[in-house]
Formats: sequence, structure tokens, C-alpha cells
Amino acid sequence: MKNKQILLAARPLGAVSESNFSLVETGIPRAGDGEFVVRNHFLSLDPYMRGRMDEAKSYAASAAVGAVMVGTTVGEVIESKHPKFKAGDFVETRSGWQLYGISNGGGARRVDPAFVPLSAYLGAVGMPGVTAWIGLNEHGRPKPGETVVVSAASGAVGGTVGQLAKLKGCRVVGIAGGRAKCDYVFNQLGFDACVDYKAGNLDADLKAACDKGIDVYFDNVGGPVLDAVLGHMNAFSRIALCGLISGYDNADALTVHNFRSFLVNRINLRGFICSDHIELWKPALAELGQLVHDGKIKYRESIAEGLENAPAAFIGLLKGKNFGKQLVKLV
Amino acid sequence: MKNKQILLAARPLGAVSESNFSLVETGIPRAGDGEFVVRNHFLSLDPYMRGRMDEAKSYAASAAVGAVMVGTTVGEVIESKHPKFKAGDFVETRSGWQLYGISNGGGARRVDPAFVPLSAYLGAVGMPGVTAWIGLNEHGRPKPGETVVVSAASGAVGGTVGQLAKLKGCRVVGIAGGRAKCDYVFNQLGFDACVDYKAGNLDADLKAACDKGIDVYFDNVGGPVLDAVLGHMNAFSRIALCGLISGYDNADALTVHNFRSFLVNRINLRGFICSDHIELWKPALAELGQLVHDGKIKYRESIAEGLENAPAAFIGLLKGKNFGKQLVKLV
Repeated sequence: MKNKQILLAARPLGAVSESNFSLVETGIPRAGDGEFVVRNHFLSLDPYMRGRMDEAKSYAASAAVGAVMVGTTVGEVIESKHPKFKAGDFVETRSGWQLYGISNGGGARRVDPAFVPLSAYLGAVGMPGVTAWIGLNEHGRPKPGETVVVSAASGAVGGTVGQLAKLKGCRVVGIAGGRAKCDYVFNQLGFDACVDYKAGNLDADLKAACDKGIDVYFDNVGGPVLDAVLGHMNAFSRIALCGLISGYDNADALTVHNFRSFLVNRINLRGFICSDHIELWKPALAELGQLVHDGKIKYRESIAEGLENAPAAFIGLLKGKNFGKQLVKLV
Repeated sequence: MKNKQILLAARPLGAVSESNFSLVETGIPRAGDGEFVVRNHFLSLDPYMRGRMDEAKSYAASAAVGAVMVGTTVGEVIESKHPKFKAGDFVETRSGWQLYGISNGGGARRVDPAFVPLSAYLGAVGMPGVTAWIGLNEHGRPKPGETVVVSAASGAVGGTVGQLAKLKGCRVVGIAGGRAKCDYVFNQLGFDACVDYKAGNLDADLKAACDKGIDVYFDNVGGPVLDAVLGHMNAFSRIALCGLISGYDNADALTVHNFRSFLVNRINLRGFICSDHIELWKPALAELGQLVHDGKIKYRESIAEGLENAPAAFIGLLKGKNFGKQLVKLV
């Protein structure tokens, strides 16, 4: 029995490639006093990881070259010398990209796979769900009847945003890439409409889907999609900005041309990340857990099999090849 | 005795030219029941007027071709059949670009030229001052010791923003065009520093002037100046956006390249215009009037002589040729 780890081998120059990663084998860690060892079942792959691969100043420290790639996992405690976690507990930890992790309990969360599926704690009942909840409730603040638009609508964050907004009585329009994702968002997630940004008609399609304009835009992507949305924002509308995936490889792709809309429509734009609002995680997770348990929030997962396939899955995520929450199954 | 008026003769295609205006003579209006006639002493020229000349959707209706150009004046009531205004009263009205205006009292404000100079009611104790007050207090919300940056710093809005922020105990850095304006902002208005955006070294000069980064940016200009500022914003900083004068002739000039900063620094950007906050005018004007009266807020004026020179003065304003609040003296 060995541990496997994926390290950041080199920082990407532009697009991420598999050569930026390396796979190594090590021994399985042993718990010291106050620590526990977790066997990870699922690794979450998330767009924010792209930023950690760069050296540029961002909201979190860079990952170190040669270190295990940062990431959150769910798994089972297999050995514990920690007073609050015992063998057999299921936990979410910041183990990184590896089969076995060691934790002193910092940032660890005990989870209950009998309440919602274990993997959901990495999605709608985890960081992506909390991101959706905070951005919508704190920054978007939609009123019933208002029109809420969300990009990357079939993803872990976007899908949750839209379903939460529907529960608030909003008209909800998704933006996603390709017919299959749009059909899923409309038919399975229950959005009022979903616009395919790859269909080449984004501006007109948005206008048709948002005949009363847009009151809240939850943005995960930036770039040309944001520019198109800006042309349809209403007076006193709000933009919750939590991701710019269209420009993670190339900041030039984030150029905004229709900046005038911010003034003309007196838009309130708020950049945020979910860890800015630690005090909101508890109420957010309680609500999200219940909604997933009750089937009122649905989600879809793309599951890569085996740690060795994590780099390819992550590269696909950055290109929008995933369909729903991207996970790596480790057991 | 004749009235003179300047009409919007044609909408500009790009830059405004004198051919967009025409000067006509008409009779002096007579007050009907519930009306009064005002002889205007000063006409205010303001950047927002550029937007009114276009047909494009904006926050206010376009000015009509063939109608008197919109604008605010201060002057003396010379005839009144209005119960609340009498001959000899000094008033601010939305007379437009003309020597004599008629009013039913809507939007009119009685002013006292013995308290502060009459022209100040078009500047620091008028719409520009209120814009500064609202943007700083409602949207910028600086704390003592924070760094506040304001563009168009020698102008009617910018100069007031900076002096209000100094009174709050902030470090205040202006951005203005040319050495003379920067010297005035630093020496006369008491800013801690002023950066000359025409000197060709904006990014480095901003960095030197804001060694702790920027917590609040009050923007009147947009475009490359905004892009440079975005590179120095602190985490959780605020941008109050009330003008985009760099792009009023050409929206392409407003392209924002450094959009990533909004996410990385979790910036809160708020587009606003002062008329969105009618409830704040009374407290804002009371405070601003007292501060100007007490000499705690200073200002400078560029005064064009005669209505016929208003178009040239307005064109100069759009190019930054004014130095302080741009007025036209009508008597």
C-alpha cells in the first residue's frame, strides 16, 4: 500500500498541460499526536486551482513548485490521534491531490454520507454551493420576479445559483456551452431558459431570453460573455463576480469593451470569493444540505477515475469539457 | 432686450464641434400664473451634457435636436406669479443654455449669495458637490488612514471629493492632467499628492504616491487611467464610478484590460449618478455649504464670458482644457 501524489512540477506558460504535473509514490502517512489520516474517496477539481499554479498576486498564495497540488477531498478517517475525529468518520479536508492525507483538524469538516452522497460535500453542499449561496444572497440580492442570469450554468456553482434563484421566485436564465448542457440546465435543473454561448448568437439570444433585461448576473467566466451580458443589464442591477475562467490562461481575453454600461445602468459589481465570508458558511451549508437532501437542488457530476487522470480532467475543466461538477474518484 | 438661447443643432458624430450648436434670439418670456422668470447670471457646463447630446440609451433622456441645450443656471428672479419665489430672489434652475428662463418652481432651489458666492451653487454647493459627497460617503466609505484616489482632481467634483476625504483623515491622491493642475491640487486643495497622467509614467507615479495601495477610487474618467488604477487597488477596495469622460466621444476608449483586478481584489464597483439619491441632497448641501462658507472646501472656476462662448467652453471642458469648475458668465 502506497500513497500517490500529484505535484506541481512547473508553472504553466499560458494553457495548462500535463507536463505541469508529476505523479509520485510515497509511504502512507502516520498520525502524530493531534492528527488523523484520511483515505480520500473523491478529489474536487475547481477553476480556482488555475490561479494557484501561477506566481502572480492573487487572493491566495501560489502553490509551490514541487509540492502536492492544493485541493479539497472527501474521505474516511483510517487512523486518528485527534480528540474530535475517529477512525470511520467521513471528513472533508484540504488534503490536496493525493490518495491519503494527514490533518490536524484545521479546515476539516465532518460530513454524513447518509444525509447526502459523499461527493455532494465537494459540490452543492461544499465550497461551490457556498459560493453560489453567498454570491446570490449577499451580492446579487434578487427580488421575486427579477431576472437572474448565471454563466457556466451547468457547473457546480452555476447550477446551484440558478436553482436557488428559482426557489426565490426569479426568472432564471443560464448561459452554457453547447446544446447538451443547455438542455440539461433547462430540462433537469428547471431554469426558465439557457443560452448556448457557442451558438454564435449570444447577444440576440440573451435579449430574447431576458425580455425584461437582467437584474442580477452571477459571473463565473468574464470575457466576451460578460461583455454581451453588460449590454442587457437593467438600471440598478447587480453583478456578483466569482470567476473569470475565460481568462485564466490569458488575461487579455478578459478585456471588457462595454464598460460604459456600469455607469449608464448604475451597476453594482462585487468581486468575491467564498472564503471572504466565513461567518456565512454554517447557515449556507445547513440550507444547501437540506435542499439537496430534499431533492430541491439537483446536480450532475463528471467523474474521472483514478488520481493519475486528474491532470487531464483538470485541463478539460478549464476548457469547459466537464459537464457538471468535476471530481476524481480515488477508491 | 432680447433673450438669447443656444440650441442643439445636430447630434455629434464623435467629437463635439461648434456646428452642433446654434445661437438664436427670442423674446424674453413672461410669467404665467404659478411661474417666474429668472435672469441667469451663470450657466454651469458639465460633462454629463455630452451624454444628452447623443441618442443612445443612457440614464437620462436625450436632449432634442432644435431645443435649448439642457443645463443648470443660477440667477435672479425678475418677475414672479409663483407663491414661493419673488422678484429679487436668487435661484438655481434648470433653465438650459439661455439668458432668461421660465420656471414653475419644479427643480428650482432658492440660494443665498451672501452665504457663499452665487456661482458656488453650481459647483461645490451644487450638483458637483453633491456628486462628490454621495460617491465618497455612500459608495467609497473610506476609513481614516485609508488611501483615496480621485481622477479629474482639479475639477468641481474631484476637488470636493479629495477635500472631503482629507477631512475624514484619509491619505488623498489626485490624478490630473498637467503640472499646473497638479500643483494646484497639491498646494491649494491640500491633497497629499497629485499624479500627472499626461507625464507618461502613470503606473509608476501612482505606485509611488500610493505606497499602501488604493482603498477607494472615485472615478470621473474611465479608460486608461482606470486601468492603471486597477493595478494598485487593495483587497476589499471600493470604486465609485460617476463619470467616463475619456470615452464620451468614443466608447472604444473605455476598454478595460485589467478586469482581473475586480476579482483578485474583491473590488466593489458602484456606478452612480447624483440624482439616484434625492434623499441625500439636503444633508449633503447643508454640509457642503457650511464647509465652503468656512473656507474648508476650496474650489477654482474657469469662467467663459458670454453665452455665445458656451459651445467653445464646453468643447474645452470635454478635452480637459478647463481648470476647475467650468462656468459661463451671462451678465
